[in-house]
Amino acid sequence: MKIWICPGSFDPVTSGHLDIIQRASKRCDSLIVAIGINDKKVPSFSTEERKVMLEKVTADIENVKVTVFSGLLIDYARKTGAAAIIKGLRAVSDFEYELQMALLNKRLDESVETIFLMTNINYSFLSSRAVKEIASNNGNIEGLVPELVRDDIMKKFGKGGIKNDSL
Amino acid sequence: MKIWICPGSFDPVTSGHLDIIQRASKRCDSLIVAIGINDKKVPSFSTEERKVMLEKVTADIENVKVTVFSGLLIDYARKTGAAAIIKGLRAVSDFEYELQMALLNKRLDESVETIFLMTNINYSFLSSRAVKEIASNNGNIEGLVPELVRDDIMKKFGKGGIKNDSL
Amino acid sequence: MKIWICPGSFDPVTSGHLDIIQRASKRCDSLIVAIGINDKKVPSFSTEERKVMLEKVTADIENVKVTVFSGLLIDYARKTGAAAIIKGLRAVSDFEYELQMALLNKRLDESVETIFLMTNINYSFLSSRAVKEIASNNGNIEGLVPELVRDDIMKKFGKGGIKNDSL
Amino acid sequence: MKIWICPGSFDPVTSGHLDIIQRASKRCDSLIVAIGINDKKVPSFSTEERKVMLEKVTADIENVKVTVFSGLLIDYARKTGAAAIIKGLRAVSDFEYELQMALLNKRLDESVETIFLMTNINYSFLSSRAVKEIASNNGNIEGLVPELVRDDIMKKFGKGGIKNDSL
Amino acid sequence: MKIWICPGSFDPVTSGHLDIIQRASKRCDSLIVAIGINDKKVPSFSTEERKVMLEKVTADIENVKVTVFSGLLIDYARKTGAAAIIKGLRAVSDFEYELQMALLNKRLDESVETIFLMTNINYSFLSSRAVKEIASNNGNIEGLVPELVRDDIMKKFGKGGIKNDSL
Amino acid sequence: MKIWICPGSFDPVTSGHLDIIQRASKRCDSLIVAIGINDKKVPSFSTEERKVMLEKVTADIENVKVTVFSGLLIDYARKTGAAAIIKGLRAVSDFEYELQMALLNKRLDESVETIFLMTNINYSFLSSRAVKEIASNNGNIEGLVPELVRDDIMKKFGKGGIKNDSL
Repeated sequence: MKIWICPGSFDPVTSGHLDIIQRASKRCDSLIVAIGINDKKVPSFSTEERKVMLEKVTADIENVKVTVFSGLLIDYARKTGAAAIIKGLRAVSDFEYELQMALLNKRLDESVETIFLMTNINYSFLSSRAVKEIASNNGNIEGLVPELVRDDIMKKFGKGGIKNDSL
Repeated sequence: MKIWICPGSFDPVTSGHLDIIQRASKRCDSLIVAIGINDKKVPSFSTEERKVMLEKVTADIENVKVTVFSGLLIDYARKTGAAAIIKGLRAVSDFEYELQMALLNKRLDESVETIFLMTNINYSFLSSRAVKEIASNNGNIEGLVPELVRDDIMKKFGKGGIKNDSL
Repeated sequence: MKIWICPGSFDPVTSGHLDIIQRASKRCDSLIVAIGINDKKVPSFSTEERKVMLEKVTADIENVKVTVFSGLLIDYARKTGAAAIIKGLRAVSDFEYELQMALLNKRLDESVETIFLMTNINYSFLSSRAVKEIASNNGNIEGLVPELVRDDIMKKFGKGGIKNDSL
Repeated sequence: MKIWICPGSFDPVTSGHLDIIQRASKRCDSLIVAIGINDKKVPSFSTEERKVMLEKVTADIENVKVTVFSGLLIDYARKTGAAAIIKGLRAVSDFEYELQMALLNKRLDESVETIFLMTNINYSFLSSRAVKEIASNNGNIEGLVPELVRDDIMKKFGKGGIKNDSL
Repeated sequence: MKIWICPGSFDPVTSGHLDIIQRASKRCDSLIVAIGINDKKVPSFSTEERKVMLEKVTADIENVKVTVFSGLLIDYARKTGAAAIIKGLRAVSDFEYELQMALLNKRLDESVETIFLMTNINYSFLSSRAVKEIASNNGNIEGLVPELVRDDIMKKFGKGGIKNDSL
Repeated sequence: MKIWICPGSFDPVTSGHLDIIQRASKRCDSLIVAIGINDKKVPSFSTEERKVMLEKVTADIENVKVTVFSGLLIDYARKTGAAAIIKGLRAVSDFEYELQMALLNKRLDESVETIFLMTNINYSFLSSRAVKEIASNNGNIEGLVPELVRDDIMKKFGKGGIKNDSL
């Protein structure tokens, strides 16, 4: 059985994430969507909230399972028996960073492949950060996040809990 | 009337900023230089100090107005009736980030165009951060910032209030 | 006498750093490996620890001297009589940043040249941050850092003092 | 009167070109779409064919005029009284080349500004070359070129006059 | 059955190509290595020579088949029932070009996915062109091409049939 | 004695080339400026013309010698006893190409180092090709090429022998 792993913060899940998950799920037998816990960063959504949102939006994809992990991704890949790590690429800056991570992970365990899919062109400008900026300013995030979680996200930010003018 | 908007932190204004402002002001009827307030970052200069410095250095450009805004830039552009957002590009890393912002803003409001000018070659290496590093180490910022605000900037940093060795 | 300076945080020194130091030392009469002190960042290793590690791994290179500096690099280069600053380049993102620094330093003092060496291909994915991530998760850093300091680094991180899942 | 110039080979015009022309025409009083003649390259479409196609697709934009020029673009800009050169940016490789051209043109005549617009996201992958490849293999170019010239282009390539497997 | 397609000129096959072929073959049921015929370029090796070399070096990989195609890759993918196109990425310049091709192909047929693998770090500087330059100057191509075809390549170039000083 | 080699086509020499030559000559004992002969490209200036121009503009730099070579650069470096190859970097696209060449050359002979200098900011947009375009259209190349060879270059192109509209 071909297991692939799709890691990320998903803070929160965007339409771009979901597109990669949908496409990757068609190329393997089982896809693990793995929420990484990072002790150094305070996420906007709790691990539980992120997991619930991901489960909602992937409920209709049979071979997807949402999990949580901490520690090195490569260790988690080994533990779950994943043969490949899936990453979406948006732009050159993504590419450089992801290439370095892929090379480093290959160094740590040559048997785990990193596979890149290009991000859907309609989401090439999209990030969790951008979604949060717009939501926290009561902007319209329709289409930028899966419809099933739009309200969840707006509820969190709608009162302007996070403000940022950098857009 | 063609209104353009030139947003930024201007913390502090540099010779590179002023060059873009001067050139953009010639291509439109009215140019709004808009200082963005970002609740998440603590600026080195207060909003008021940044506004005063920008007003000083643009005093002789008739169609420039300095303002302050918070929230989404695209909302502010709409509110002020601006038809375009002006951005200076220095390098590839600038370009990628600004392209993503431009695409996102277009998604939020297609009627507002983002227009890019290339940074003057003499300032292609310049940033507010670099100015602060040099100033805080009593280095020479002549030519890097408009002459009219050089003393204002040195006064802030001249006593080494901020120290950083990354240059 | 041709003095070159190789600045960095070295927090901690990696195999990539050592490779650049070794190669640069062959092209000049005296190479100063200069640890920059940055008041704004809290390093993982103290200045003293970083100096000791660098001295250990460069002990057999006769013309290398490890020093500590604060303030502007260009001022330190002048003070030490260095004719050139040495930088290793790994990737495009490195290149853009380093190019801007080099241009800025040239502006501050035209007589000090910045010289770039490409990073050894085997270390093109390597950074101090990556080493710390792996070490803090009890991963294997063999080959990623000079053998002489491997234990020093593992001792610091081996108990999981810093945890991070971003790899 | 604000005259802008939009230069290119337009061999043939694509939907991406037309999008830039439409948007630029709204920001100036008069837009010159200037077909550059290059003695070194043999175009797929004759100068006359390219001019006719451009005139067809811009017929409904009042302030657009299609012209032909040879020699340096900066000389032609001066001759026509254009205050700015308009360029669309698709990707990083575009940006670097266009930045160099803009800097060179600025060196030749500082009074002519180069203004960049980002390419519409739906055309970010599009080029005249790609259109020709697809057309010459009887692929579907619907949406990739303005509807008014689709038949003109297919007629040229439909018989497989140019074959290329690089897509 | 999951069919993937790995297209290229393979003029000649390099160690970098073979590495991608080997790794891709493990992630699918059947891998078609497809030599593209390009009427516009004169290859150094004939289609037949390239096919023979590829068959030699992939003889021990059971699920690999070497084929030749002309016309659009996407049409060939459809014809062969391939679900995905495999591409190796070496550097940023590769990435931009391949991203554009991937987006264009997606536009032509959304059902065919483009999947990127990073090139093995040891071959990140390698290209068919480089191999030919070295071989034509009687340089040592050991390790740069699969051992099984080294003599075939040297025979072609060993007498200096192609000379080039650009390395 | 420390010998460095600075290779190129120099077709013709520009102010950017001369700047790199001058700066490199200060960092070594002897600098070989090596004109590469490329059987595949027809240069605008003959090998002899290029050599004469380079000798003119470097006449006052004592430790510079102009030579001609064909074949692999790394072989020529070895033959001349050069310890390093000097390359100027202008932009990201330069960087990627030069990095690949440097890695390839290191693979062919590890003892020869490639050393990069950044191009003077005033010449960051400059290339031999650009000079030829401007000259062939009777544009002003003052400052773009060393004063001593300006007339030589204009003589060649002044009658419009080469025409190109791509600027």
